[in-house]
Amino acid sequence: MNAEIISVGTELLLGHVINSDAAHIANLLADLGISLTNMQTVGDNRERLLQALRLAASRADIIFTTGGLGPTRDDLTKEVCAEFANKSMQENPELMACLKSFFGDRRISENQFRQALQPEDSVILPNSVGTAPGFIIHCEDGKLIVVLPGPPNELKPMLKNHVRPFLEQLSSQVIHSRFIRTFGIPEGEVDEKLGILLESANPTVAPYASGGEVFIKVTAREQDRDSAIRLAEPTVEAIKERLGDAVYGTDVNSLEEVTVKRLIERHLTVATAESCTGGLLAKRITDQPGASAVFHAGFITYSDKAKMKFLGVPAALLRKYGAVSEQVATSMANNVRKLTHSHFGIGITGIAGPDGATAQKPLGLTYIAVAHSGGCEVQVMLPEGNYRGRSWIRNRASSMALYALLALTR
Amino acid sequence: MNAEIISVGTELLLGHVINSDAAHIANLLADLGISLTNMQTVGDNRERLLQALRLAASRADIIFTTGGLGPTRDDLTKEVCAEFANKSMQENPELMACLKSFFGDRRISENQFRQALQPEDSVILPNSVGTAPGFIIHCEDGKLIVVLPGPPNELKPMLKNHVRPFLEQLSSQVIHSRFIRTFGIPEGEVDEKLGILLESANPTVAPYASGGEVFIKVTAREQDRDSAIRLAEPTVEAIKERLGDAVYGTDVNSLEEVTVKRLIERHLTVATAESCTGGLLAKRITDQPGASAVFHAGFITYSDKAKMKFLGVPAALLRKYGAVSEQVATSMANNVRKLTHSHFGIGITGIAGPDGATAQKPLGLTYIAVAHSGGCEVQVMLPEGNYRGRSWIRNRASSMALYALLALTR
Repeated sequence: MNAEIISVGTELLLGHVINSDAAHIANLLADLGISLTNMQTVGDNRERLLQALRLAASRADIIFTTGGLGPTRDDLTKEVCAEFANKSMQENPELMACLKSFFGDRRISENQFRQALQPEDSVILPNSVGTAPGFIIHCEDGKLIVVLPGPPNELKPMLKNHVRPFLEQLSSQVIHSRFIRTFGIPEGEVDEKLGILLESANPTVAPYASGGEVFIKVTAREQDRDSAIRLAEPTVEAIKERLGDAVYGTDVNSLEEVTVKRLIERHLTVATAESCTGGLLAKRITDQPGASAVFHAGFITYSDKAKMKFLGVPAALLRKYGAVSEQVATSMANNVRKLTHSHFGIGITGIAGPDGATAQKPLGLTYIAVAHSGGCEVQVMLPEGNYRGRSWIRNRASSMALYALLALTR
Repeated sequence: MNAEIISVGTELLLGHVINSDAAHIANLLADLGISLTNMQTVGDNRERLLQALRLAASRADIIFTTGGLGPTRDDLTKEVCAEFANKSMQENPELMACLKSFFGDRRISENQFRQALQPEDSVILPNSVGTAPGFIIHCEDGKLIVVLPGPPNELKPMLKNHVRPFLEQLSSQVIHSRFIRTFGIPEGEVDEKLGILLESANPTVAPYASGGEVFIKVTAREQDRDSAIRLAEPTVEAIKERLGDAVYGTDVNSLEEVTVKRLIERHLTVATAESCTGGLLAKRITDQPGASAVFHAGFITYSDKAKMKFLGVPAALLRKYGAVSEQVATSMANNVRKLTHSHFGIGITGIAGPDGATAQKPLGLTYIAVAHSGGCEVQVMLPEGNYRGRSWIRNRASSMALYALLALTR
């Protein structure tokens, strides 16, 4: 089974919007083992959309469209897909009732009424977030057109709740995917360590790098779900063994998710004292719902004075070693731990740049200290010639802190 | 002049990577008034890339490709584009010298040697970040193929420093664009207030919404740069007048950039006391290089205890009004201002969710207080039925704080 995606929207051609929808659909198709060889993008333009549909139908069995389902005159994807499939538009009583209840006493414009129309022989995909539903149009030649909304917050639940189950039914095979996430190991080294595992045909093993981390996706295909799960398991275990401590989680979303969950489970608390990361570490911890169980307070001590006054870092230490030093990071971590009566205290101090570097302390030099009941572990980051910008340094330093915290709670 | 973009990369078809490259190129083309009607995506596959090039050449004068320029066997974009244009590959002595100096004593593999090859009749686009240069191939029929690298951090400087000047030369007109950024005004209201200005043909006026803000792009086309600048100016002024205080900046990158710059100019300082935003506001302030001049310290007081101990919020206030209240936000703002001897103090407390809501205090309810020498201004955010998630609430609350700070320094 072959699929093709057509993204519809003039805003995409103007570069106003980055097309994340196509990646979400592509991800789902990869998960289900449905082959995707081409994607197209066109504006809100009838003729060009028809051309794109013709081309897609010449090489794919399922065509996905995104965008152009709203109530304005520009939005014409639903009508053009129906026209392409030789289907008339029919009023759907349920959609009409929804529309009327939404508008109440207000007048419904002609364009708004179009929202209650449905292509004949189509299945409605409910929209749990917005007003425009999606549709699956069954063409006479057996091909399918899956018409989806453009806003990602409407598209994503529709994919998960309606499109995925529909596609799973179509397939005679069940696909089961696992994700293994690592930190602190370069992609080349992952490839080398996985070696022959990368050549496996079922399950497949695909590593990829994103945001400074490396993920490995394991995908198994079988007749039923239990067999697919069983088939994937030994490979997942083999990968975890080969990559060792670099693996921080399987089937998880982020380093902060795993770390905060671990602390919650163990009834442990952490406090932060940040200089160059300026609140990013605390922000990542508190991105997680439920973080209040493990995180009560954090300090951002950007100036030397703030480090002394609020964290009690000795003036002599700052004078002797400078703010960006192992000694000051350690003092920040120890002191914030004591001040807040937390199990762990994290201190980060560095030169995020672009200014502030000296001959002795180059751009990107950062100390990350984690204090605990038994002492304090300090890591140093030294990008040397490979300084990749302020936000990269800040992100990397906060990830190193989270990873160190996770290692200490292992 | 018509353009088309072909994004090349199997990782795009697997959904591993969101295609931001296409948006960056589209943005540049829109800026230069070059029409873009179609985009395609294909994998690292010779036959499909040739098909995509054939289709693009049938409808565009300039074809852009991104991706597939690396040294691995999969990377074949340069060779396939040359094949399509009937150009041979030639060794370039400068590229070869670069490669040899990069590898030093190490063996250079056959695949690596390909990096020193250049299609005949092509111009090299230097890569300031990575090793693979881009190319502009001149086809016999006058069409151009612009071959660009895939990693956005390599693509973006190449677009800015080499592709833009090249395209500007091609055009007989000069295009000048201005960006007006607003906060706190919905897109519909912007449209209404701009009214007839939206219909202007030269300069064009295009509003668009992104990340909870509305931007307006004004683009003027003229024979020379000065005329284009002069042509845009009255429209920019008219828009600023119609949108009033909602406009926070013109030709700027973000609310935090404008706010931090303003504070630097005025020699003013700010300190933060965050509960539900958990460090996000401080993070946004310290995202800006040079923030150390205006920001010395911030507190994240997630628990009631931390609010009392580190900020001195009275226990009675917390008992009487609860942590999420105007009174506590005000106390946080006033106290952090005094503690840090800053000109401004910001206090944020709210229910970011998904848990923690009560009948009296619904999901998303957030108080944002800004204390200054003359008192304390408090805003309340109440999303009511329209709660859009934890990260939306946190982002919005921190934006409201930055915008309020900016208004107070006007």
